[in-house]
This record gives sequence, C-alpha cells and structure tokens, in this order.
Amino acid sequence: MPVSPEMAVNPDTPALSFAELVQLLTQIFLRHGTSIEVAGVLAENCAGAERDGAHSHGVFRIPGYVSTLNSGWVNGKAVPVVEDVASGFVRVDADNGFAQPALAAGRALLVEKARSAGIAVMAIRNSHHFAALWPDVEPFAYEGLVALSVVNSMTCVVPHGADRPLFGTNPIAFAAPRAGADPIVFDLATSAIAHGDVQIAARKGERLPPGMGVDSLGQPTQDPKAILEGGALLPFGGHKGSALSMMVELLAAALTGGNFSFEFDWSNHPGAKTPWTGQLLIVIDPSKAAGQSFAERSQELVRQMHAVGLRRLPGDRRHRERAKALAGGITLDAQTLAQLRELAGN
Amino acid sequence: MPVSPEMAVNPDTPALSFAELVQLLTQIFLRHGTSIEVAGVLAENCAGAERDGAHSHGVFRIPGYVSTLNSGWVNGKAVPVVEDVASGFVRVDADNGFAQPALAAGRALLVEKARSAGIAVMAIRNSHHFAALWPDVEPFAYEGLVALSVVNSMTCVVPHGADRPLFGTNPIAFAAPRAGADPIVFDLATSAIAHGDVQIAARKGERLPPGMGVDSLGQPTQDPKAILEGGALLPFGGHKGSALSMMVELLAAALTGGNFSFEFDWSNHPGAKTPWTGQLLIVIDPSKAAGQSFAERSQELVRQMHAVGLRRLPGDRRHRERAKALAGGITLDAQTLAQLRELAGN
Repeated sequence: MPVSPEMAVNPDTPALSFAELVQLLTQIFLRHGTSIEVAGVLAENCAGAERDGAHSHGVFRIPGYVSTLNSGWVNGKAVPVVEDVASGFVRVDADNGFAQPALAAGRALLVEKARSAGIAVMAIRNSHHFAALWPDVEPFAYEGLVALSVVNSMTCVVPHGADRPLFGTNPIAFAAPRAGADPIVFDLATSAIAHGDVQIAARKGERLPPGMGVDSLGQPTQDPKAILEGGALLPFGGHKGSALSMMVELLAAALTGGNFSFEFDWSNHPGAKTPWTGQLLIVIDPSKAAGQSFAERSQELVRQMHAVGLRRLPGDRRHRERAKALAGGITLDAQTLAQLRELAGN
Repeated sequence: MPVSPEMAVNPDTPALSFAELVQLLTQIFLRHGTSIEVAGVLAENCAGAERDGAHSHGVFRIPGYVSTLNSGWVNGKAVPVVEDVASGFVRVDADNGFAQPALAAGRALLVEKARSAGIAVMAIRNSHHFAALWPDVEPFAYEGLVALSVVNSMTCVVPHGADRPLFGTNPIAFAAPRAGADPIVFDLATSAIAHGDVQIAARKGERLPPGMGVDSLGQPTQDPKAILEGGALLPFGGHKGSALSMMVELLAAALTGGNFSFEFDWSNHPGAKTPWTGQLLIVIDPSKAAGQSFAERSQELVRQMHAVGLRRLPGDRRHRERAKALAGGITLDAQTLAQLRELAGN
C-alpha cells in the first residue's frame, strides 16, 4: 500500500515534546560551562523559538552558543546585578553573560515598577543577546502590559548614505495584550533582512531578494555568502530604517552603558559569535490610561485590520506553530537531532 | 550693471524675522477664533517649521488650520485638563483642541516625573495634531532628556497585506542630546511618504517615486492627485513599516483613550482637515543610566557615523536652515505673504 503524503514522516525523526527539547538543550548548555540557572533560561528561550517555527533563532543557534561558550567570550556562570535606580528605572549589569538571565533577574522589579509608576524602563548592559527579541516582550502582554524592547548587535549594516557598515541588525520588538486572543507581537530587524535568515539562505544555497545587502566591495549582491564573507547588510526602508537603527544604538548602548555594535573586540576569542552590547526594555501599564480597556481597543484594531483585507497579523504564524507543536510535538531532522545529542554528550 | 545671482532677491519678498512671522501667524489664529494661549503655541510651532525649512509643515499649513477652525471641528479655545495619574504617568484631555497646547499644559509635570522616576509617559487624547512631530521632542533633548513620540492621524495608509486603507501616516519622532552639538532628532512618517509632501507635489504638478501609493482602484500610481483623490498611501518598508504604523495606532490611540485613525467622522464639518486622535510621549532621563555621560556617547556614535562615510545626519538640514533664518530672516514668496496678511486682516 502506498504511503499517503500525510504519513510520509521520516522514521528517523520522532517528535520531541517541548519539555524534552528544553531538557536536551539544558544538558548542552550545562555541558559547555553554564550555571544551571543560565542553562534553564537559554534552553527554554531557544526551544520556544523552535516550537514557534522561528527556526533562525531555534536550535539552529545551538552550535553558535556552544562555540561562543568554548571560546571564553561569554561568562556562562554570570550572576546579574540588579540595581533599583528610581521609581521607574531598573539597571542590570549582566556580568558579561547572556541577556536573558539578566532580564529574568530584574523582571519582577520591572513589572512592579511599571504597575506602580505607569511606565518603567530596564537598562541591561554588559550582555550578550543571541536570541529572537519577541520572547522577551511577549510575556508582558500576557500579563496585561505593553512592552517595547531594542537590542543592538554587531557591525554589519551600512547606515543609509554611508559607505561602510557600522550598525548592528538592531531589532525592535513590541507586544500588546488583546482581549480574548493571543497578544499582538512583532519583532523586526532594522536591517533589510535578519542575520540569521542570511545564514539560513547561505546554508540552503538560496539567493536573496534585491536590496538586502552589499558585498565586500560595497556593491549590491543577492548572494548570501558574499554578504557573510566581508559584505554587509542594508537597513530596511532606506533612511527611515537607518534612523531607527541609529535610535536602537542610542537606546540599547548609550542609554544602558553597554557597547555600541562597533566597540567590542572578540579577536582574542576565536569562535565567539555573540554581540557584547546592551538591551533596553520599556513596559507600560495600560490600565493607567483613560477610556475603555486597552485590550478591548487593541482587539477592535485587529478586527478593523481584518475588515480591510488583512489575512495574517504579525505573530499569527508563531501562535499557530506553537499550537501545532504543543499538540504534535517538535520535529527535528535526523542530522540536527543527532548533532544536538552529541553536544549533550548522550 | 548686471545684478549678481546673490543679489537677485525678489523685491516683493522682504525677509521676516522669526518674531515677525510668529506675530503674523498669531494674528491669524486669533482672528479665526482661538484663545491667545492656543494662538501663541500654534504660531510658534508653525513659524518654527517654516524657519527650519520644513515647508510641508510651515505656513503651507495655515489655510488648513483656518479652514478647520472655520468648520467648528476643533475647539480653538480649548483648555486642556492635566491629570497626575502615577509617578511616571501624565494624562491630558486636550478638550477637542490642538495637541500642542495640551503638551504645553502638561510638559512641566512630565519633565519633573521623568527626572524623578527616570522615565515618564504623557498620554494626550481628544486632540488634533496638524504639525510636524519633531518640534514636540526636540526641546527635551536640549534639556538633556531622551524623548520619543508617536501620533496617529487619519485613514490614508493601506496596511501591508490588506486591500484598503486603515492606518494614518502615523509618524514616530525621536530626540537625544549630543555633547557640544545640536541634538540628534528624527521624525519619520510610517507611510512611504508624508501626506504634506504628497500635497506639495500635487500643487507643483510633480510625479512621485514608485512605491508611495495607490489610486482609488488600489492600483500603484505615481500621480499625487490620484493618491489624494480617493487613493491611499503605502507604508514604508513593507511589512515592517506597517507593523510600526500599527504600533502607533496602539500607543497613540488605544493607550491614550483617543480615536483610532479610522474612528472619527468629520462629515458634518466641511473644511475640517485635522485628525481627532491622540498622542503619546515617552521621556527618559539618561543621567539615571550607568557609565559615561549619554551626550558624550551619542556624540561618539555620530563621530563614527561620519567616519564610515555619512555626510548628513537626520536633522542637520533643519539646524542649518534655522541658523540661516536667524541670521538672514525667513523669506516667503509674495503670493504666500499676501495671503497670510489677508488672513490676518492686515
């Protein structure tokens, strides 16, 4: 009997549950020198991206994490120092560790301040962000808060009107609650394309759309390898995306006390992949605002967006993939799974 | 003796000083039913845009202000109500008046809160914003503060992936101090082009670059008149600019208690031009951050931007035009000046 396409699942790749994937990634981080706290935060973050179909920030990133940890560039056992600076201002020194454990360390104080002051900011410095940005903001929206975050990265984007790269891909992420539905969430690189997507295209041997980047001579190219090997990305939307990327440098680095995307030097740490910069989060309590419930209003906006013909909201695909993965598990190809198990020492 | 080009100034258009232009515009606003407070704020704002070479938001806007006031759509004698909601949250009901007097009314409280809490937000609702957004944020930077503002406007932008317009041009403005130099300031419409620039192109009979808008049938067009007459604008930067425009609706309307860009109905007020929406401002005190002075750091970023070949920063042209106007006055063409004098009853 011929196998129907629906049944043609590769027998080498049984689906993992979310908890199983978190467990496997935790083992990898622990085996490469992180503390148990850091391993837990990073494993949950990375498994969440994989679960939600955000593959460029899922297990695809694990070799980069491992290589970075092996190089001694990041402190895998970092203990973040949280400072309560003012009624709306939290400062965190990430201790040359990853940004997510620093956020986790100051998060409760940030939420408490936002609910009390109406708005609060967290300025993380001395940190490495190697993940997607939306997982940092989305949980606030599930708690009824509005959140905005920016993080700068590493020189790879040519400012509009300049000749050579300076900015990082410098993403902006935003999350807002919505009545009776998953939050509105977006996460956009201010580069024309995310660095992870260039890496994926290079690995797959695919060409990029025009306008994404330049080669090592500063000439436009559609070859992802030419961008990765001495070339650079362009900002999205010309001078406007470039202005936003500049703003991200100012908020995530100048305002936190972190490095600009062009300031750190990892030449003594071969294998290092993570930007040693800063991150800013702003959280607003919309219950302080006038009028109807914010979540009802945001749901009304979505209703009207659908009424003018929009089929998909930013974030919709991730929520659909998440539901699918929670029901049927997370499927990895056999080679990837074998590689992860080897890194975990299984 | 032939006249050199430098001397070939039209004798019909003597330059006005900034104070003279403010005085003339104040007379116009007063004559069309505003209070002296509202007239002063709007005249200074509009004259400032003209002085800085931001012509699409300069005296070009005066007939629109007059037409709107004549239509009874806006309360020219509005008295904004400022509410101190929390240690970082100021709420202002603009009393169906213009947004700038509402900002002026709550501004001192906003700055006090930002300096004390480290960050503060002002949520203005029931307001009409008909000016450029950068004049709202730039003064904070001269006081050493970082400011971000968003305002929604009126349905004229098709969300990316939709068929019909819903969003306004929904600008984002940002200002940050810089050591020993004018602040870093930008103001960008999240539409591919500002509505004022479409109006200017239509008046001049010029075509637009591709990708700016669609005609009344939803087809791409480069004719500004086709966009203004039943057509619509596109967001800048595809899905990313569209996501930012959506964020502006959420922050400037849902979070303030103001109208979305598609909610107000001015059909009973022929001649009305101003969007009846809301505005959000976020102000951060960078002295609460760790490390070096923020202004020194932002100056370092600018230095590096120039080092990679950037010739002009956003805002540079305005600062240059401002210096020129302060030295040599503001020149208007004879027809415009005559029209303004007539509106002022001179």
